[in-house]
Amino acid sequence: MLRIYGDPISGNCLKVKWTAERLGIPYHWTNIDVVKAETRTPEFLALNPAGQVPTVVLDDGRTLAQSNAIILHLAEGSALIPADAYDRAKMLEWMFWEQYSHEPYVAVARFHMKYLGKAREAVDPKIIERAHAALTRMDEALAGRAYLAGVALSLADISLVAYTRFAADGGFRLADYPAVDAWVGRIEAELPIKDPR
Amino acid sequence: MLRIYGDPISGNCLKVKWTAERLGIPYHWTNIDVVKAETRTPEFLALNPAGQVPTVVLDDGRTLAQSNAIILHLAEGSALIPADAYDRAKMLEWMFWEQYSHEPYVAVARFHMKYLGKAREAVDPKIIERAHAALTRMDEALAGRAYLAGVALSLADISLVAYTRFAADGGFRLADYPAVDAWVGRIEAELPIKDPR
Repeated sequence: MLRIYGDPISGNCLKVKWTAERLGIPYHWTNIDVVKAETRTPEFLALNPAGQVPTVVLDDGRTLAQSNAIILHLAEGSALIPADAYDRAKMLEWMFWEQYSHEPYVAVARFHMKYLGKAREAVDPKIIERAHAALTRMDEALAGRAYLAGVALSLADISLVAYTRFAADGGFRLADYPAVDAWVGRIEAELPIKDPR
Repeated sequence: MLRIYGDPISGNCLKVKWTAERLGIPYHWTNIDVVKAETRTPEFLALNPAGQVPTVVLDDGRTLAQSNAIILHLAEGSALIPADAYDRAKMLEWMFWEQYSHEPYVAVARFHMKYLGKAREAVDPKIIERAHAALTRMDEALAGRAYLAGVALSLADISLVAYTRFAADGGFRLADYPAVDAWVGRIEAELPIKDPR
């Protein structure tokens, strides 16, 4: 059975959980507490030398890391990956953009405030500014579209909803991004996502 | 014909050039000077609202961004993507890791020193530390392996060689990472890469 090593406070880990559930893939979940540095134990580093969650162990015992690589592997051949080559490329564009231009700001602002207990004024203003830029870009892209790539739910939506739905924890108001706000509600309903925001 | 908008100082842009050349895909290259903020002009933002190079315009006029998404699209069905599902997943793992844990440190240290003219002491020590961690992880992974994923050249090698070969510009000595150093030489010879380091 698929083994997922993850922390439920991590949107990156929840992506893997939601994708497995959506595809009906049974899994065993092992909690790894990021705040307690359980990703830095010798046991965990033997699974993933990068010391990052999520990490999965596949049925054959081999390991895989990086949330977006894991969900691409689990979803191969499923409807979560568009059949059209251009839609598939746009899905990948959003997924790489998520890790480079969204997660390091939207997720990190949340982590500093909610889990490290920082006041918003203590968060690096560059993080706040770039998180706003990421949410603005999504809001423009989602105006008049139901999904980020193609015409149905794809891994791009799963990848980007993970931390976008937690944006309020970093002091951002989703109501300021109405197309994003409506999209978060749609994706949460469609997946469905039962984990609380 | 494929149109690539890129800056030759950017490893992310060179990935696209090398992949097109390796696959025999003809292309037209338009220089976009990052240091002169040519990614921020209204004309460029109309092509890519994220204001990032590389951006490509495909034969049918549609645009695509994010270096790793572009090379995955160009290389679909080619030998640069492993046929084995696990090798393919590992290739993607390295490509997402590159954008999250390597490029923001190895490439950014280089940019600050070589293009912004900073002394090494003026570069954020966290950037230096994480770049060292990324190079160390690659060195461990490449000990005894010819390629990052699978048994042949893949997009993981193209993606990661892009800034690794420029590591000296950020003050890192590739000789300190002997498996990485040997791998850079092999990948440069095999692609081949003609652009100077």
